[in-house]
Amino acid sequence: MNGARALVQTLVDAGVTVCFANPGTSEMHFVVALDEVAEMRGVLALFEGVATGAADGYARMTGRPAAVLLHLGPGLANGLANLHNARRARSPIVAIVGDHATHHKRFDAPLESDIETLARNVSGWYRASRRSRDVAADAADAVAAALAGQIATLVLPADVSWSDGAAVARVRPPAPPVPVSDDVLAQLATILRSGEPTVLFLGGRALREPGLVAAARIAAATGAALLAETFPARLERGAGLPAVERLPYFAEQATAKLAPYRHTILVDAPEPVSFFAYPDKPSELVAPGCAVHRLAAGADDVTGALIALAERLDAPAVPPLAPASRPALPTGPLTVDAFARALGALLPDGAIIADEAQTSGVFLPMATAGAPRHDWLTLTGGAIGIGLPLAVGAAIACPGRKVICLQADGSAMYTPQALWTIAREHLDVTTILLSNSAYAILRLELQRTGAGAGGPKAREMLSLARPTLDFVALARSMGMPASRATTADDLVTELRRAFAEPGPHLIEAVVPPLV
Amino acid sequence: MNGARALVQTLVDAGVTVCFANPGTSEMHFVVALDEVAEMRGVLALFEGVATGAADGYARMTGRPAAVLLHLGPGLANGLANLHNARRARSPIVAIVGDHATHHKRFDAPLESDIETLARNVSGWYRASRRSRDVAADAADAVAAALAGQIATLVLPADVSWSDGAAVARVRPPAPPVPVSDDVLAQLATILRSGEPTVLFLGGRALREPGLVAAARIAAATGAALLAETFPARLERGAGLPAVERLPYFAEQATAKLAPYRHTILVDAPEPVSFFAYPDKPSELVAPGCAVHRLAAGADDVTGALIALAERLDAPAVPPLAPASRPALPTGPLTVDAFARALGALLPDGAIIADEAQTSGVFLPMATAGAPRHDWLTLTGGAIGIGLPLAVGAAIACPGRKVICLQADGSAMYTPQALWTIAREHLDVTTILLSNSAYAILRLELQRTGAGAGGPKAREMLSLARPTLDFVALARSMGMPASRATTADDLVTELRRAFAEPGPHLIEAVVPPLV
Repeated sequence: MNGARALVQTLVDAGVTVCFANPGTSEMHFVVALDEVAEMRGVLALFEGVATGAADGYARMTGRPAAVLLHLGPGLANGLANLHNARRARSPIVAIVGDHATHHKRFDAPLESDIETLARNVSGWYRASRRSRDVAADAADAVAAALAGQIATLVLPADVSWSDGAAVARVRPPAPPVPVSDDVLAQLATILRSGEPTVLFLGGRALREPGLVAAARIAAATGAALLAETFPARLERGAGLPAVERLPYFAEQATAKLAPYRHTILVDAPEPVSFFAYPDKPSELVAPGCAVHRLAAGADDVTGALIALAERLDAPAVPPLAPASRPALPTGPLTVDAFARALGALLPDGAIIADEAQTSGVFLPMATAGAPRHDWLTLTGGAIGIGLPLAVGAAIACPGRKVICLQADGSAMYTPQALWTIAREHLDVTTILLSNSAYAILRLELQRTGAGAGGPKAREMLSLARPTLDFVALARSMGMPASRATTADDLVTELRRAFAEPGPHLIEAVVPPLV
Repeated sequence: MNGARALVQTLVDAGVTVCFANPGTSEMHFVVALDEVAEMRGVLALFEGVATGAADGYARMTGRPAAVLLHLGPGLANGLANLHNARRARSPIVAIVGDHATHHKRFDAPLESDIETLARNVSGWYRASRRSRDVAADAADAVAAALAGQIATLVLPADVSWSDGAAVARVRPPAPPVPVSDDVLAQLATILRSGEPTVLFLGGRALREPGLVAAARIAAATGAALLAETFPARLERGAGLPAVERLPYFAEQATAKLAPYRHTILVDAPEPVSFFAYPDKPSELVAPGCAVHRLAAGADDVTGALIALAERLDAPAVPPLAPASRPALPTGPLTVDAFARALGALLPDGAIIADEAQTSGVFLPMATAGAPRHDWLTLTGGAIGIGLPLAVGAAIACPGRKVICLQADGSAMYTPQALWTIAREHLDVTTILLSNSAYAILRLELQRTGAGAGGPKAREMLSLARPTLDFVALARSMGMPASRATTADDLVTELRRAFAEPGPHLIEAVVPPLV
């Protein structure tokens, strides 16, 4: 058995059954192995950032890694931005980077580059496989490493793929999560019982139903506030789940939100800091003098810790849950508010939202809070161009569920090639392309950074209006059915149609920019 | 004066007057400075790989660096693939990577990453500016470093941009090229006079007119053969210039081409090696026992060395030059051969060819050898997605000349956003989009790597046919006039129209794949 086949079989045996791929010459034996191992699904992406973002979406929805197949250093480079987001989401991913044959590297052929430093930028685990007989064990180690919630990058030289002598390897079971100590629980219970203003700042695994329910029980028992991190990897929400607000993006709003609290308890979330720095503004968002504590993170049993804390506080078994409630259907002009209300009014049960709506999404949290339960996936690392790829991965992860991609226009143009993969795989993804013909967030940031209003050249750098992007034509160019909505009524009609019919749809929603 | 303004003014004073930009929040003060320094032209790209590839094209055509403006680590990551190509082309580029404010970095905000290792992957020079009062001197050093034929990356923290206390700096003049020693010239003259079969292997600066003429004089005087590297950054060719064949891409053809020679003299080119390794095939392409010599490279005066060698050999003043000659206009089916003849028949005088035609380009060298003189830019580093961005940069570098982008479909989809910048800047670029609905090169490589024919899943990984990409719609979605040619006659008609009318045109040429 050659190395490529042993590698693919090892992945499949470990439950890694999807490979998002953008292969080149050095990966041809891996590609051929796809036919030799029936259980592996190959999903072609026309650009590497689509493959890596899709693997992130898949991981967020399944908790398991997909593989991505990339072509040498430049292929990895093209996938790095979305791997950066995946790293911030702590998504398990097995990144396989094809490389020159081991004996070829010293010749510095044109595609030669330093793959390792690129990979380490985003990877918690890295290895370059050296021999066919090791490659399956290397892959097994990569899967085990990925399952800890990180990117594992395995470099696969062409001769390691094509040489015989390989055998399938088995992945060791992941270590169970570590229980949080009684000391920590006791200390935090004391704080929560003290009556001092306290907020539980929830991220990661704390934002899934069991964690949310336990956190809400703690809040109900103690009066503590709950806040979610600004950009969660996956937030379960909607009617019947505890309602948790996300910390605002803008630093001054976030600071105001956190101002009342004397204690911040971090639950699988880093301490909240400003996304960017601004002249004469602090980077840290908690109030001066606020004590910051940590309940659980990393290898800890986050959900178990929340439940144990709730029990210790004699919290009620059932906390307050969001009531079912939808906004009225909008009519008239298509504003970002009308867009949010249309989505809230029509959101299908069990939807998965891949959210890269940026400034056009400001009204979404409120408008969808009482909609049927759904998952909300966000831009965890700030590297734009993830909305459409996330939707690819989520749709492949959850074939029975409607995926809704909320995609700002400027961000869409980093990975538009995802539309082709959605069409090719006939994925059940409705994309609402929010077209405001501007980098609207930068218009806001221009003022907030103290750079001033900017002259005509600066304004041109933030405008997408010349020429206007036609996303209906763009989607159709990649085989995707598309329509345009210029009124709220149009949008309602198009959403109803798209939600009723499985398969790919793109609706270009022409909305005015916020500024 | 704040750091951003001093930086931009320093660049402009040093002749860096174009900035290909994809800015974000941390670059807002730089963007505002564009209005304060009238001589700086800002060119917006919707994706970073467009910006970096455009800077490469600009550098290849002017010999001077453009600036690129990128947004933190993920922005740089998106630009790396084309910076990889630029590094291989030894293009001078000043890459400015905006970063978090210096005091903000320790908070590990979502966009924080290790910019330095990413940058060093492609940069001959790297520095992170620390203070506003240093930034202009840092920029001056960056320009000086870039002028040595490399990428200089300057990291620009937001507070260095926005803080006052900066002053403009001056760039030190570049060191003159180093004359090649008499010893080297004498030794190589002896070899060339020996009558032993010898080939001059030309790259880099040796492929511009003065170098080509001197090399052809040496060939005329000694019977030595001339060969150009497979993927030159810029090859001047056409009627009235010495005709120099490029070494074939496929290793077995390259080996056969080099087999007759006992001496290979490298002139600003690395020793020829196989692009990829193949089982049981050598990586080195020169014949066993062939002696490899070096005339000039790096900091050497390459052109001066060729001229000095020609003089020492009493070479004729005027070597044989390519006669004017064009193929007949093709008619009938649109094949890759007909495409090549159409281009050869109609190529405008002084055209610049940005060539990423891949397998559809196999007949181009012969069909265009006697066309009016032109520049040919190729994919130097093998990182696909450079054709359209190169065309952007070449058109901005040379406003009076027609730029022709020969763009394969699969490669086009890595940086299609360049079409928008071409339309926005109304650049005189005619794109011939060669649409064969396949990664045709990989179909060839699948067999050549010994991976076999591949099963249905493998073949799907190499097919772009499901769904078909509609490049006319894609171009129009970004504001570019476009048409489709399905016969040779169509293509001739469309080329005539596009060549007669300045400004952007895209012609989708539907051609059958080679295999």
